[in-house]
Amino acid sequence: MKTVCCSILGFGAIGQGVAEVLLMKREYLESIGLEVKVVAVVDSKGATVNPQGVDLTDCLSRKRTSGTVALENITGVEVIRSVDHELVIETTPTNIKTGGAGLQNMLAAFQTGKDVITSNKGPLTLKYRELMETAKASGSNFRFEATVGGSMPVINLANEVLAGNKVISIKGILNGTCNYILTRMLEERASYTDILAESMQLGIAETDPTYDVEGIDTACKLVILANAIFGLDVTFKDVKVTGITKVTPEALEMAYERGYVIKLIGEVSRERIHVAPRLVPINHPLAVGGTLNVASVDTELAGEITVTGKGAGPVETASAILSDLIAIYGNL
Amino acid sequence: MKTVCCSILGFGAIGQGVAEVLLMKREYLESIGLEVKVVAVVDSKGATVNPQGVDLTDCLSRKRTSGTVALENITGVEVIRSVDHELVIETTPTNIKTGGAGLQNMLAAFQTGKDVITSNKGPLTLKYRELMETAKASGSNFRFEATVGGSMPVINLANEVLAGNKVISIKGILNGTCNYILTRMLEERASYTDILAESMQLGIAETDPTYDVEGIDTACKLVILANAIFGLDVTFKDVKVTGITKVTPEALEMAYERGYVIKLIGEVSRERIHVAPRLVPINHPLAVGGTLNVASVDTELAGEITVTGKGAGPVETASAILSDLIAIYGNL
Repeated sequence: MKTVCCSILGFGAIGQGVAEVLLMKREYLESIGLEVKVVAVVDSKGATVNPQGVDLTDCLSRKRTSGTVALENITGVEVIRSVDHELVIETTPTNIKTGGAGLQNMLAAFQTGKDVITSNKGPLTLKYRELMETAKASGSNFRFEATVGGSMPVINLANEVLAGNKVISIKGILNGTCNYILTRMLEERASYTDILAESMQLGIAETDPTYDVEGIDTACKLVILANAIFGLDVTFKDVKVTGITKVTPEALEMAYERGYVIKLIGEVSRERIHVAPRLVPINHPLAVGGTLNVASVDTELAGEITVTGKGAGPVETASAILSDLIAIYGNL
Repeated sequence: MKTVCCSILGFGAIGQGVAEVLLMKREYLESIGLEVKVVAVVDSKGATVNPQGVDLTDCLSRKRTSGTVALENITGVEVIRSVDHELVIETTPTNIKTGGAGLQNMLAAFQTGKDVITSNKGPLTLKYRELMETAKASGSNFRFEATVGGSMPVINLANEVLAGNKVISIKGILNGTCNYILTRMLEERASYTDILAESMQLGIAETDPTYDVEGIDTACKLVILANAIFGLDVTFKDVKVTGITKVTPEALEMAYERGYVIKLIGEVSRERIHVAPRLVPINHPLAVGGTLNVASVDTELAGEITVTGKGAGPVETASAILSDLIAIYGNL
């Protein structure tokens, strides 16, 4: 049995999802020879630390009743520097302007020789190259399947399952909120404003939906794909972005009558990276509805391979983190 | 640099595709530290053997001009027993009644401690358990991504990318010929017989299409998924099968008006394995057209993950064989 000592930095919906999945999967992980021991859980108010292993059930219940796991006034970076462990699971909120706490956490983790698995797009969108080089210098593993498309396994698919197969381009619907809005506008012949209001009521769109509907979230994911799969060195400013706010129900209907749907498509290749509403034939694999995410990977040998899945959700995202964890430490 | 000595048994479309892909990917393979040396190529008339490495370009050209690579009158099993190598790439024609030459080749390979990568469904449909146990006894690797859905990576996706994530069921369109026929019947409002004739003219359907249109091919793939992903011990006779020969253009049209398409769906779970024409909502990820294959993997944590790709084609199938080869010998 190999014991992996880890910290969970960030204990919002995704961090809690990770804790739940680790509790659910304890037996399975043991069956493949892994014991995952969480030695610290950190949120914005402080941390619970126990080198013998914190009680995740207790952390989840304290977070839900009192809003924090904080027992000690200690930050993520301090935990990384002072508590002995080998893996940092980084799930703090995305900040694409500064990289936020996540950027500092990841750099500190690599500087102390720790592996990082993350769902946090911000640091990768801003500082991909620096993060990769710092990880490489210390021999650390760095995996981030959960940053793009939640449980939709596009990065590991392109880099591992399709190994040997040169990727020419990736096109996809990488934002579930935009997909939901466009799907519902067509179904109801309703305006963007009306369906946006519905999406907010349902909790699908955030109170400030700018990041999603203006295509920024999609652009961030493209930046990660461009760097991780195409080996480019780009940031958010290299992406041409148009959002969905100008799409009308009339345009959707007219397209549908001709056998097309309109989707917010992100596309990345060695030549260009852009986000815009585009026509997709209705029986094309990219034409999926609801809040689904989808990515078509065009390859040299295998043609187009498309993968569809739930783009969000704490347990779905945590499952991508779990698959990264098994990829690093498991011996399947 | 690690040298992998291998044989290619079966030199029809897929075996030739493997040779082409190995030629195309020589540099890439070297860049990841692998030299793949083919020491024997075998077809139904005999073999070309050279322990120093056969010339694949020459084999391809002789096969195309004279219909065979045979320079020596020696079978696959004899090559396995007498020529020093570690990997057998088995691409002989599928025979689901006896397992054909493929079954004998695979057993002989395992008995002599060799790894096997195959695109040949027959032996796995008939004797999955025996093959796995023989492979295990000799410590051999046995990989067969190419047997299900060509380049659509469903087996490796479920077993590796989704590691840790229990698979509840798999539903899919696993036969491109049936998908093409049903897609075209709807597009043209044409009868099964008319579109079958068109498919034969285009070379999409075989001269005897029974194996495809009666759902037998789909059932064989389900047997492989049931054994490989669900750990069951089933054979073809455990599958309930209905083909597409009774589907009418009227049924397709009526379904379409209500927002559905009719597809030949294979479904496997721990409870049941069956193949039948079923209704699929038109914006569901399974509703793909043309000759595409698609599989939806329903998982405990990540929900439904769907993967779509070209189900056939020599280079596409060879690319699945290449990904298996890299999974065994590569060190990515």
